[in-house]
Amino acid sequence: MNLEDLDKKYILNTYAKKYVNFTKGNNATLFDDKNNNFIDFTAGIGVVSVGHGNETLSKSIYEQASNLIHTSNLYSIEPQIKLAQKISHLAKMDMAMFFANSGAEANEGAIKIARKYGQKNFENKRYKIITLKNSFHGRTITTVKATGQDKFHTKNFSPYPAGFSYDNTIDDIYTSIDNETVAVMIELVQGEGGVLPFAKKDIQELEIFLQKNKILFMVDEVQTGIYRTGEFLASNLYDIKPDIITIAKGLAGGVPIGAVLCKHKNIFEAGDHGSTFGGNYLSTQASSTVLDILVKLKKDGTLDETIVYFTKKLNEIYIKYQNLFLDEVGLGLMLGLRLKDSNILSKIVALCFEKKLLVLRAGENTLRFLPPLTITNDEIDEGFKRLDDVLANI
Amino acid sequence: MNLEDLDKKYILNTYAKKYVNFTKGNNATLFDDKNNNFIDFTAGIGVVSVGHGNETLSKSIYEQASNLIHTSNLYSIEPQIKLAQKISHLAKMDMAMFFANSGAEANEGAIKIARKYGQKNFENKRYKIITLKNSFHGRTITTVKATGQDKFHTKNFSPYPAGFSYDNTIDDIYTSIDNETVAVMIELVQGEGGVLPFAKKDIQELEIFLQKNKILFMVDEVQTGIYRTGEFLASNLYDIKPDIITIAKGLAGGVPIGAVLCKHKNIFEAGDHGSTFGGNYLSTQASSTVLDILVKLKKDGTLDETIVYFTKKLNEIYIKYQNLFLDEVGLGLMLGLRLKDSNILSKIVALCFEKKLLVLRAGENTLRFLPPLTITNDEIDEGFKRLDDVLANI
Repeated sequence: MNLEDLDKKYILNTYAKKYVNFTKGNNATLFDDKNNNFIDFTAGIGVVSVGHGNETLSKSIYEQASNLIHTSNLYSIEPQIKLAQKISHLAKMDMAMFFANSGAEANEGAIKIARKYGQKNFENKRYKIITLKNSFHGRTITTVKATGQDKFHTKNFSPYPAGFSYDNTIDDIYTSIDNETVAVMIELVQGEGGVLPFAKKDIQELEIFLQKNKILFMVDEVQTGIYRTGEFLASNLYDIKPDIITIAKGLAGGVPIGAVLCKHKNIFEAGDHGSTFGGNYLSTQASSTVLDILVKLKKDGTLDETIVYFTKKLNEIYIKYQNLFLDEVGLGLMLGLRLKDSNILSKIVALCFEKKLLVLRAGENTLRFLPPLTITNDEIDEGFKRLDDVLANI
Repeated sequence: MNLEDLDKKYILNTYAKKYVNFTKGNNATLFDDKNNNFIDFTAGIGVVSVGHGNETLSKSIYEQASNLIHTSNLYSIEPQIKLAQKISHLAKMDMAMFFANSGAEANEGAIKIARKYGQKNFENKRYKIITLKNSFHGRTITTVKATGQDKFHTKNFSPYPAGFSYDNTIDDIYTSIDNETVAVMIELVQGEGGVLPFAKKDIQELEIFLQKNKILFMVDEVQTGIYRTGEFLASNLYDIKPDIITIAKGLAGGVPIGAVLCKHKNIFEAGDHGSTFGGNYLSTQASSTVLDILVKLKKDGTLDETIVYFTKKLNEIYIKYQNLFLDEVGLGLMLGLRLKDSNILSKIVALCFEKKLLVLRAGENTLRFLPPLTITNDEIDEGFKRLDDVLANI
């Protein structure tokens, strides 16, 4: 049986997927079993932060796996503790954290913290969490409910409410807060929603308002975190210090991991939360190595140069195809081109795949770019050459 | 700052943990930074199925990480498909699956499937799921709600119901099924609940009844699966073919992974569920290697011999300390000693740690044993010698 037939026989249908057999990667280039090379402007949806086949990362993983992959959190785990210290320092925020295995699990942790905070600090045990219409927060039943996009609401498969309400804009939040509101959870740049960054001033004002009213400010940095926007966290770029931040995707370069960071270090007590795999030796040591690679990339100026170069090339495409595009959007290496005609988005993504360029869609009409942070100028050039070829024939 | 102080500063308090710094493992033996050796009868709560520092596994992980750790599920992933085929064959059940990153995420998938099944197959969109009082199904908000143990119900931090009801026994299930019941979810051997295996006959009768009434039979094998009870799945041992099975823990020897297996292959459509990391190259290739190691261990008789030997040594302890123990319980290498006096359980676990033996508690009064499936007779001997030393002084 070929790969496609086997996939249809053994894998539940949840993705409209492209059948290709990638067998090796080298930075932002993927090779299939026929030795075709693909330029990867997706990084596994923002995950492969240090590129495919990164030797420093694979050696670190090997060394850790040879010694010790996993013990339970009933025993202290040095690489977990060291990673938490490193994250706190890089974030420039004094926070404690809980390690999970995905962005969804990190957001589950954040929601639990908010509910516990409501129980501890308000006589009426506040529990309501405000999120935004265009948000995306994960695929567990509760995080799908937190997700504001209408198209996901038929997919949560639970007849019960879960204590979330959805606002259209940051401004709306002020009017919908009531005396049961315990937290506001937002992304600073909405990823799945369509690569939509908020204005720094609006976010900073919101932070001050929420602090004043003792309502938790929770920032979902699952996609924006770990240098995706150019700084360690988008919160650093926005110059805010939220109560709670969640991170995942790029944190360990592809090894499953997520984390919820929290200012309120004593919020939980033993037994309140847990994870069997979360924070184990393998995932946290891999993450530490990824962060070391990215810190160097940031410090020596390479990351900033790459952002400038990628943005310049994107702008050239935007200028050249004003007939197709409304706007260029995003921050850092989380970028998009907004299409005038949303009907051709799927076609462009499919044609790019045929030309061996991997790109993503976001929202209704956004062509999205999330390359590895280590992408080279040559890879950028080649990728945009392929994109140009596609767009010239639309 | 020492490790304990750093942990308290940077890690949220969720576990009553022992401060020790494990730096290396060799099969069922862990070494700390002072070169003390610990015998591990816990395997990271049933995770480290092929032992610590397993060279075949670490080499397989290295090879895969060198080539390709992760792409998104927008593209087919050969090691994921091959792993699914392997699992289906080993389970001797024609099932399709969805890969997640933990047992909790696998159970989230199972619950979503049940709800979708209710929407598709019943005019009144059945949604209620029956679980058992002593169950444990995970730490996301929804899976904590699915968990029947009272002590977790204050920890779900959600004021809403979630469509679960809890029965005391298998017999109770028959009377509590109503016309909104869509599924029954149970463990075959309750792990966290206290190492409680159900009678084969009761489970087989329940399966027949549920099939007849078109109610889904969902078996949580997060702890019992992957040869923990001596067969690939406890469902094989019980000779049943449930509609849905979830697995995780031992599946990839410590690399975070979970899976929900489902008979109803067309239940989902694209967009119904998803996971960024779930089923990626690294975790599924690691899992394939783990399964190859365990299949060999089972086929050449080693696993069965180990189970016989471990059980014999446990029985010797049980017989010797009739003053302390009520019963010996469990199946395969998922075993327990039931204490007469639940008040000394914590003390025994703590004294074992001092004697450098890792053991677990379960339920209120059970000393639990979940060693790596690859544990040697020498390691078993040494572990029980240390346990004997502890019990002689209680």
